[in-house]
Amino acid sequence: MNLMKSEPDHRLMIKTFQEDFMPHEKLLMIPGPTNLNPNVLQSLSKPLLSHTDPQFYELLDQIQNGIRYLFQTNNPYTFAITGSATIAMETAICNLLLPGQTLLSLVHGYWGNRVATMGSRLGYNTNIIQNNKFGENFTLIQIENALRKYRPSVMYVCHGDSSLGCVQNLNGIGKLCHRYNCLLIVDAVVSLCTTQLEMDNMEIDVLFSGCQKALSGPPGISLISFSDKAVQIIKSRSNMCPISSFYMDINLVAKAWGLDNNNVHTYHYTPAINLLYGIHTAIREIINEDLSKVIERHQKAKHYLEKQIQNIGLKLLIQESENRLAGITSVLIPDDIDGNMLIQFMYTKHDILIGGSLLASDPNVPKFWRIGYLGVNADRKKINQTIESLQDALQQQRNKFKAHL
Amino acid sequence: MNLMKSEPDHRLMIKTFQEDFMPHEKLLMIPGPTNLNPNVLQSLSKPLLSHTDPQFYELLDQIQNGIRYLFQTNNPYTFAITGSATIAMETAICNLLLPGQTLLSLVHGYWGNRVATMGSRLGYNTNIIQNNKFGENFTLIQIENALRKYRPSVMYVCHGDSSLGCVQNLNGIGKLCHRYNCLLIVDAVVSLCTTQLEMDNMEIDVLFSGCQKALSGPPGISLISFSDKAVQIIKSRSNMCPISSFYMDINLVAKAWGLDNNNVHTYHYTPAINLLYGIHTAIREIINEDLSKVIERHQKAKHYLEKQIQNIGLKLLIQESENRLAGITSVLIPDDIDGNMLIQFMYTKHDILIGGSLLASDPNVPKFWRIGYLGVNADRKKINQTIESLQDALQQQRNKFKAHL
Repeated sequence: MNLMKSEPDHRLMIKTFQEDFMPHEKLLMIPGPTNLNPNVLQSLSKPLLSHTDPQFYELLDQIQNGIRYLFQTNNPYTFAITGSATIAMETAICNLLLPGQTLLSLVHGYWGNRVATMGSRLGYNTNIIQNNKFGENFTLIQIENALRKYRPSVMYVCHGDSSLGCVQNLNGIGKLCHRYNCLLIVDAVVSLCTTQLEMDNMEIDVLFSGCQKALSGPPGISLISFSDKAVQIIKSRSNMCPISSFYMDINLVAKAWGLDNNNVHTYHYTPAINLLYGIHTAIREIINEDLSKVIERHQKAKHYLEKQIQNIGLKLLIQESENRLAGITSVLIPDDIDGNMLIQFMYTKHDILIGGSLLASDPNVPKFWRIGYLGVNADRKKINQTIESLQDALQQQRNKFKAHL
Repeated sequence: MNLMKSEPDHRLMIKTFQEDFMPHEKLLMIPGPTNLNPNVLQSLSKPLLSHTDPQFYELLDQIQNGIRYLFQTNNPYTFAITGSATIAMETAICNLLLPGQTLLSLVHGYWGNRVATMGSRLGYNTNIIQNNKFGENFTLIQIENALRKYRPSVMYVCHGDSSLGCVQNLNGIGKLCHRYNCLLIVDAVVSLCTTQLEMDNMEIDVLFSGCQKALSGPPGISLISFSDKAVQIIKSRSNMCPISSFYMDINLVAKAWGLDNNNVHTYHYTPAINLLYGIHTAIREIINEDLSKVIERHQKAKHYLEKQIQNIGLKLLIQESENRLAGITSVLIPDDIDGNMLIQFMYTKHDILIGGSLLASDPNVPKFWRIGYLGVNADRKKINQTIESLQDALQQQRNKFKAHL
């Protein structure tokens, strides 16, 4: 075989591979991914099962039941998807609507706009509603007005918006949507296990989340569940108008998970088996702690962090306490501080990473940091470490500033 | 918080989680996933980096270069995608064609039909050509006739078809396609690292593969590269007619990999960071062994296995030796043997799993097993173990058969 022609280039390309890649350890106080639970991390290296092994089907069954527990649902169509939460988002909307139908997206921050972009690409008649005030909840009256005006067949709302660190109260929204013959998609990527969430009681039609947030699991795998109403639509369109994506087709996903044909598992694609070990262990850790206690731990961490932030003289982005998310807190950057330099300093000197803003390019949005404390990081000791290093970094910048005067 | 309403159900659901999930170890002599290289398996449990960490960008750069080496290409647009190889397949075709354009798929076995299904869903004018004889190569004349007849803008060919264990000679196909102004997509999911493959020299426009085959890496992550011609199309359509999938948009993938804006990495989705550790280590192992030696090892394993199979009186599905793939060998099931029972027996008694047929439901296809020897399993010792257990299983079934007479 002749590798001659391009060999010199490839030699150069691969010279960086001479050393093994060793990621440094950092405390990830960001909106995600969070540090993995050590047991979850270890579980990724379990021996590989074939995706056709009966023991693998057992694993799938357990994971389905685990997700049902986390989501508080009895929906049969409940899966883990090989792909990031963004693919769960796309899967949710592309399975429920036909091109030309109407999608309504409630925009708090970044994610509502992403869904609107997806909706337009998929050929839906896409509408958004937006509040003037950052992180403010949409009221049932506002939502009802929008439902009346746009008559959407599907509405999307982000339960916890990680871009602002706000939470939307879901009470009554599902019932309201159903009164207007509209299905409700809820994005629980960062609210799952940090905030009370009951899929069936809240009448949610599609709920999705990621593994790399409050589950302290690996990124690259996502969770999703469909109500009976949603499944009915998915099944009825399957032959006459299949969705454009083969990969995301929930009819095929359901067959692969053994749900559509007497427990026969039909090949769809080879799933991320190691990440399924990860999600299984992550769910198991939550069961052992108890879901309600995990939520309580995040809520307590929220109040504790908010108090500490205010104690060191910083201000929160979101005004009303009940609009503030547990798991991610947005902190305004004081005028005399360079936000990126501070992140850099904490990262280099203290091995702690906090988050910048996803909305930094928007001149109408104030400058803020996002401090995450998700999963194993929703912990008083780690919050104290973060606050101390934040104080040190603020001090350092102010000293530098004084030295320049 | 009130979990009362559905608690009894969820208690039942989660009772299986009381024990940790321990997958049994099997020798995976199947068409994939294969057993992981132990170093790759361990690498999955390295500490998690943030996807915004400068060290993570270094990892991305190294992986890109590594894939360029495996693919023998200098293409800038060369990535690992968070998702199975099926999503790489869909990404390849959905980025290159607009609805209404023409796709030609060369059908050897299962995969060419899958691409045709995807093409129809995406609204392409989709054509296939097919040979009568299993695993036979398409000749340049046949291909030219089809190009002249259908005038496709994109043609798909599976280099190594895992459903039959056959390999298509690629020599001259790229040049021929380009003469007809057609881009060439090559599926190298099972041929990468088992068969000579040079993307640039062979004038391939999109090449993709998976990690769970000859790389002996984890499933759930795929490899893909785009030629300059392909990138030109992708860029020119990006504003006027973006592809329907946000997740699979190569313009956004390129930005996330730092390729489109002076090394600035724009957020697209959180990638499967642990699986990227896996793919990095897998590539490193191949560099250490040398790509040409890895290919040679698979070729030798092919000849060795074929000889052993014939020695124990079994017949191969594919007639011509040069049409037979290295890495997966299809073996005809003798009339007096129950194929599934034999797989079961080898699995239970010998902890060795061999593959059944993806085409078993087609009455026109003879019954055969597929024996995989991919990555670390392309090894004489493992092949010997497989042959011995296969002999034992054949013996057992024949004894049973005699006892029934």
